[in-house]
Amino acid sequence: MNYTLSHIPERTVKPRQHGLTMVMDKGLSIRQVEDFLSTSAEYTDIVKLGWATSFVTPHLKEKLKVYKDAGIPAYFGGTLFEAFVVRGQFDDYRRLLDTFDLQYAEVSDGSIEMNLDDKCHYISELAKQVTVLSEVGSKDEAKIIPPYKWIQLMKAELEAGAWKVIGEAREGGTVGLFRASGEVRQGLVEEILTQIPSEKIIWEAPQKEQQVWFVKLLGANVNLGNISPNEAIPLETIRLGLRGDTFSHFLNGLGLSH
Amino acid sequence: MNYTLSHIPERTVKPRQHGLTMVMDKGLSIRQVEDFLSTSAEYTDIVKLGWATSFVTPHLKEKLKVYKDAGIPAYFGGTLFEAFVVRGQFDDYRRLLDTFDLQYAEVSDGSIEMNLDDKCHYISELAKQVTVLSEVGSKDEAKIIPPYKWIQLMKAELEAGAWKVIGEAREGGTVGLFRASGEVRQGLVEEILTQIPSEKIIWEAPQKEQQVWFVKLLGANVNLGNISPNEAIPLETIRLGLRGDTFSHFLNGLGLSH
Amino acid sequence: MNYTLSHIPERTVKPRQHGLTMVMDKGLSIRQVEDFLSTSAEYTDIVKLGWATSFVTPHLKEKLKVYKDAGIPAYFGGTLFEAFVVRGQFDDYRRLLDTFDLQYAEVSDGSIEMNLDDKCHYISELAKQVTVLSEVGSKDEAKIIPPYKWIQLMKAELEAGAWKVIGEAREGGTVGLFRASGEVRQGLVEEILTQIPSEKIIWEAPQKEQQVWFVKLLGANVNLGNISPNEAIPLETIRLGLRGDTFSHFLNGLGLSH
Repeated sequence: MNYTLSHIPERTVKPRQHGLTMVMDKGLSIRQVEDFLSTSAEYTDIVKLGWATSFVTPHLKEKLKVYKDAGIPAYFGGTLFEAFVVRGQFDDYRRLLDTFDLQYAEVSDGSIEMNLDDKCHYISELAKQVTVLSEVGSKDEAKIIPPYKWIQLMKAELEAGAWKVIGEAREGGTVGLFRASGEVRQGLVEEILTQIPSEKIIWEAPQKEQQVWFVKLLGANVNLGNISPNEAIPLETIRLGLRGDTFSHFLNGLGLSH
Repeated sequence: MNYTLSHIPERTVKPRQHGLTMVMDKGLSIRQVEDFLSTSAEYTDIVKLGWATSFVTPHLKEKLKVYKDAGIPAYFGGTLFEAFVVRGQFDDYRRLLDTFDLQYAEVSDGSIEMNLDDKCHYISELAKQVTVLSEVGSKDEAKIIPPYKWIQLMKAELEAGAWKVIGEAREGGTVGLFRASGEVRQGLVEEILTQIPSEKIIWEAPQKEQQVWFVKLLGANVNLGNISPNEAIPLETIRLGLRGDTFSHFLNGLGLSH
Repeated sequence: MNYTLSHIPERTVKPRQHGLTMVMDKGLSIRQVEDFLSTSAEYTDIVKLGWATSFVTPHLKEKLKVYKDAGIPAYFGGTLFEAFVVRGQFDDYRRLLDTFDLQYAEVSDGSIEMNLDDKCHYISELAKQVTVLSEVGSKDEAKIIPPYKWIQLMKAELEAGAWKVIGEAREGGTVGLFRASGEVRQGLVEEILTQIPSEKIIWEAPQKEQQVWFVKLLGANVNLGNISPNEAIPLETIRLGLRGDTFSHFLNGLGLSH
């Protein structure tokens, strides 16, 4: 840090197992990746190349190398996995991960129907090859999954070999964990937390108010995902109680009043 | 493309006459233009320097050269044409196009009152010098033009020599083709399409939901405009059915079900 | 300017005492700062490193030097001042300003309770060392300060030595001067202006409609703040009547009708 302030919440350090920030890159250029890393590498644990943007992004190998050289794993969004599966190209997908020397993969069913057995099979197959993130929740705002079902899916997918489960929100933060307005489905999150350890979940929370809500509920070291590259620095200040939104929250907890 | 997926909708290739993506640059630096082009040149057909931003943007000639060297025509937004006309400086405007060696110009009346005869006169005069895009629709959300009138204007402006007509939406996507909420004026679009070939229209559609709506209605190769530079890659995935929003739409059409 | 247009509102020139644009940098990289300055240095008078982002931003000294070399003062957001004060580290804060060779500082109470006497004391103490901007308004949207109180605070803080007073809006533009919807508290602004000279106030106005509202009320040379770096060029066109939103407004005032 650039100077000393007392009473700052303690943050986990790299390589983090919790307190993760997952950033979404939806088509940055090489130089934009460098710019992002020059400010935010320390605060970024993993980068998702959003949905199937990797299909059309030029200089993909070079870009992956820039992330790798910075010690930050990059992986392809779950929609790409689904695009291969729906075309009967799962074996191609496995080869693709090798071709690009990827260490992580996401298994999701946000755009297709897939029964849980099949999903768990894909997870366990891919887990032999890479570290698997599995995502729960639909990208369709009309498909509401009840809380007990979220829990059932998350448990099964973790048991099948997923390293973490991701709670779906999309780039916008308006489905899955959230209402179309962006408001958190508070009861859903609370019920999930009665059964699944917080450390095993990455909450997609692209909107600031969503990030604030989770930091207030679960502390500085909550795992958050789908963070825009230029919001990684602001998010770190939210985690540390150094932005208006969490300023008072942490002061009380740290024994300072005002 | 970086790898092979079956059942991808066919895209037109450059130089495209339809399937166009028109990007809006509202003040990028030279290096930001280079960054944008390094990822999106292949998917970008034409760039508008938004409204009169060219008046205040430094290094304008160098910037235009960067676009030109990438084979992408850049042009000045229609509001600049209006700013010259309302000041009685139309001849200056014509000279300006030569001074900056521009190949395209936009004729619009989004901020001023102009009768159709005058507008068509400007179009035919400028068409002797450059390729003309003419824009229909007001920037004032209170001014609703009825569908029959949109059709009348578009027909007349194409006959006067416009290469394409643009449906107004502004940078935000909240006027013209859209309601203040961003929702598409569906009846308007459908009625226009009964009379004007889709290929002759560039639909301004800055919001993702708007882009999705047009791609679902008119396919991968619909002409779309006012795309933000960092949305050119995401838009290409929407066109190809590789983002959640159009994933199912194209699967059915391409003979895959799920 | 890149070409000549008649009837353009006159703008103040640097070093400006009014007509100021204050830009908010919430974590730009060095190269992003260079990009921003290459287009917008002429239109930017002062830069705020938002809230306490300076705590976590790498390469801070180099970044401050880039701004300094461009002749643009950068300063730390008021929340950082509050973070030091609430921890009883005000002396550290004073030393910090020296360590980083800062010429400006912001005194605010957006996240903590501070009585006016104490706030004025901090202002007068810091005014011995740097140029002080003092901010009025809460970051909490539930805390509504009545207009007479805004006036009382602004007057006292200017008398205590503040160079300008800032009207709070946050990065989003949804508190203080504005309703949660972003709408201007019109009566509040008008009442403030009966007592405080417009030149002494920097209005935080991050949203375009807010900028337009203030330019229409107070002219091209209103002081505006919390402008996003990529909105500095668009804002300049709004000031000059060269964007749709203020196009007609200035034409009438400048003797052109349409």
